[in-house]
Amino acid sequence: MRDLIFPVEHHSEISLQAQLRRHLVDAILDNRLASDEPLPSCRRLAQSLGVSRNTVVLTYQALADEGLLVSRERVGYFVNPELSTVQRAAKAHVRDNIGPDQVPSALWKRLRLRPSEHTQITKPKSWQRYPYPFIYGQADPSLFPVAAWRLCSRQALGVTSIRSWTEDSVEADDALLVDEVRTRVLPRRGIKATPEQILMTMGGQNALYLIAQLLAGRDTTVGVENPGYVDARNIFSVTGARIKPLPVDHDGLVIDQRLAACDCVYVTPSHQSPTTVTLPLERRVALLEQAARSDIFVIEDDYEAETNFVHNPTTALKAMDRTGNVIYVGSFSKHLAPGLRIGYMVAAKELIGELRSLRRLMLRHPPTNNQRTVAHFISGGYYDALVQRLQRVYQQRWELMGAALTKYLPDSATTPSFGGTSYWVRGPDDLDSDVLAREALAEGIVIEPGSIHFISPKPPRNYFRLGFSSIADEHIAPGIERLAKLIHANT
Amino acid sequence: MRDLIFPVEHHSEISLQAQLRRHLVDAILDNRLASDEPLPSCRRLAQSLGVSRNTVVLTYQALADEGLLVSRERVGYFVNPELSTVQRAAKAHVRDNIGPDQVPSALWKRLRLRPSEHTQITKPKSWQRYPYPFIYGQADPSLFPVAAWRLCSRQALGVTSIRSWTEDSVEADDALLVDEVRTRVLPRRGIKATPEQILMTMGGQNALYLIAQLLAGRDTTVGVENPGYVDARNIFSVTGARIKPLPVDHDGLVIDQRLAACDCVYVTPSHQSPTTVTLPLERRVALLEQAARSDIFVIEDDYEAETNFVHNPTTALKAMDRTGNVIYVGSFSKHLAPGLRIGYMVAAKELIGELRSLRRLMLRHPPTNNQRTVAHFISGGYYDALVQRLQRVYQQRWELMGAALTKYLPDSATTPSFGGTSYWVRGPDDLDSDVLAREALAEGIVIEPGSIHFISPKPPRNYFRLGFSSIADEHIAPGIERLAKLIHANT
Repeated sequence: MRDLIFPVEHHSEISLQAQLRRHLVDAILDNRLASDEPLPSCRRLAQSLGVSRNTVVLTYQALADEGLLVSRERVGYFVNPELSTVQRAAKAHVRDNIGPDQVPSALWKRLRLRPSEHTQITKPKSWQRYPYPFIYGQADPSLFPVAAWRLCSRQALGVTSIRSWTEDSVEADDALLVDEVRTRVLPRRGIKATPEQILMTMGGQNALYLIAQLLAGRDTTVGVENPGYVDARNIFSVTGARIKPLPVDHDGLVIDQRLAACDCVYVTPSHQSPTTVTLPLERRVALLEQAARSDIFVIEDDYEAETNFVHNPTTALKAMDRTGNVIYVGSFSKHLAPGLRIGYMVAAKELIGELRSLRRLMLRHPPTNNQRTVAHFISGGYYDALVQRLQRVYQQRWELMGAALTKYLPDSATTPSFGGTSYWVRGPDDLDSDVLAREALAEGIVIEPGSIHFISPKPPRNYFRLGFSSIADEHIAPGIERLAKLIHANT
Repeated sequence: MRDLIFPVEHHSEISLQAQLRRHLVDAILDNRLASDEPLPSCRRLAQSLGVSRNTVVLTYQALADEGLLVSRERVGYFVNPELSTVQRAAKAHVRDNIGPDQVPSALWKRLRLRPSEHTQITKPKSWQRYPYPFIYGQADPSLFPVAAWRLCSRQALGVTSIRSWTEDSVEADDALLVDEVRTRVLPRRGIKATPEQILMTMGGQNALYLIAQLLAGRDTTVGVENPGYVDARNIFSVTGARIKPLPVDHDGLVIDQRLAACDCVYVTPSHQSPTTVTLPLERRVALLEQAARSDIFVIEDDYEAETNFVHNPTTALKAMDRTGNVIYVGSFSKHLAPGLRIGYMVAAKELIGELRSLRRLMLRHPPTNNQRTVAHFISGGYYDALVQRLQRVYQQRWELMGAALTKYLPDSATTPSFGGTSYWVRGPDDLDSDVLAREALAEGIVIEPGSIHFISPKPPRNYFRLGFSSIADEHIAPGIERLAKLIHANT
């Protein structure tokens, strides 16, 4: 009988029992322990690792219950000789070997798309480590409601809940979640909907992808805001659709004759992306009228709708829709945790039916355990509390940002912003914000250059975006001050 | 101050505190409690609901911490007067109103696909309630490892873990999970891969969708097995590709000249779907040679690979691939829980790079919390234990099925089956299995008619599939006996 020595960490988040288990499983499956080999006695292993005897007893017993060990009375525990050799050889096998990595001969010949070549917003790796992360679209991890999420997650792990979510629900969503979205989330945007008008998606982006697949193709014209959201443009391009840039001014999307040529239009009325301006009522009315006249589908991306610091949030465009031509896209990712990927869509029942069938082919449904957890999170009032809290935090940062920009960058223009989580800044005419971003990064400041948002062979280069969802209050003014120095040195 | 009466269930899975919280949140957000209205004292509410005073104290305190209530010293708790009216009016607003449901004028004009019109396998609702559910592709909920999953899920909710998964990881997968797949799961199929050759997907189906988007289109020919997997066919059809049916015999896919006309081929070598036969070595070699010669991408769907009861599982086709032309698709859904939607793909690095960029547009990444939980589940040895256990359970059912079929349906032919979770049965020539399925259902027997698997204007109607992943051992023989009576009465 051999002695086993594993490193055990006494102050880890992972329990001693879980650590011990993991080491034993590794030793068994890596073939470091032979088939039918006896394990050290509980007492002996406990002594040599400095853990309690009970920890070892429970771990051995669990592994025996699950068939990795066998227990023989009065003798001790042994590696189960019936474990298949395939299973046991697995891990050792891969350690020193790596498979072939030929470029397949079929590759360039068969590839119909090259999605890796799309331009896209890149974020510096480990942006969290920079002192001044004016990064956009990242939730502040310190604001994530850890305790509440754990609680709701435990509720979703109750036996009855597990029964309902382990099944393949084929194309249905969690009825609890749909009901919470319908009765608690949508009404705040002024939207009334039946369950058949709602579809859950893998975040807002997945909603756009589904819509693009269903509505866009080579003979389709899709109107997009210019400047506008890069990924939306990319998603529609994948279908081969013609992308028609529509101008944006200080009030958001300009509504005019150009719309008539479009089959669908992608808009961000609450806070235009990236300029953050809110589309005024008259333009909303004009857009809906135009859409009704020309049978245009209007895709309303309502990201960050509720972060409005000056007025009450405007209701959604969808709330004014009497024709069913508006497809509403919302998401929990921004507020809750982008990693969870949960969003939703509201549209006419017939359209949702087709989107649901398409989603069934694409991925069936967003994971049911997460749907259930979010349902508990909303029904327990945690979501409301979180939105309240984020509102307060963001409003504070938004004010600090506004003050710092006025103070340190009086010669740059910011579009009038009433909400959202970023400022869109037009620097001096001769500024190159790509150069600025690189230099700023070297000084610990993360900013997002603006040219990527424009559809143009020669986009203006003097715009940039400053996000404030992930930067601590006290770093805002010093960050802007440093950034201003760089800008003045450059122009 | 009003009395509040809520129904509280003492024997519920949901704690009293969580129940109380939910009722209070509802009352606040529905405006049943007015702004600034005082709440009953803790003692009084506790008495009237029959719960401990502490339960009420903790609930009030939590709601105050989160800003839904305010606490005034020596007076008590009040509905926070600063709660926005939008927030509070929300729920009441929607109760009696339902939005318009016009069919949008743009609908039929703009729709490019009609995915709802695809033929697809339908499963009877609440199939769990039937005594003889020979249903296919559903995990037996009684086999789901509830305790282990809870434990791993708790590990993924540790503070450090939460930090790493709440972030938007844009296009990266959880490195822990990729490593577990690479070192523990793939080697059992004989596959060696680097992390760059692996992509996580929302189940196997999502892998196929990604591949289809990248490789198939109007000018592409995709070879599929006939009979074969319906959803794979549907997924490729969405792209507009030509679907070329390739014949299947008692050894699986027939490898001949017909392959040369294909740009890609979809195959199920481990257990052909639906016939369950395993593709022999010579055909595998021939397929790979043909693929190399004609630059064909071979999509290997390795579902249920490890359920093999007669021999050790054959290694994957991918394990023999020296050209990089094989794209391997695997899934945890079948074994673990289909509702989780976690699968993976292995292919040449360049191809995975393009698929990753496409996935980024489609949905970014499978939810990071689930990725992390599955990683813990594998590294803790729970996955190995589960696979072992399912093997034993399924083998037992497979033997009972085989015996019952021989006894009660000696005049029907079953293809030689060595694994999987179903039998593919050819009934008497004049059997109509769609009629049989309806009649069987009326007697509590769920079976899947076979004609849907064939690509043909006049598919044979006498085949059907009997799954055994979700039927209890003791119901197998009586179920087959009853089914046999129905067949004999019908033919």
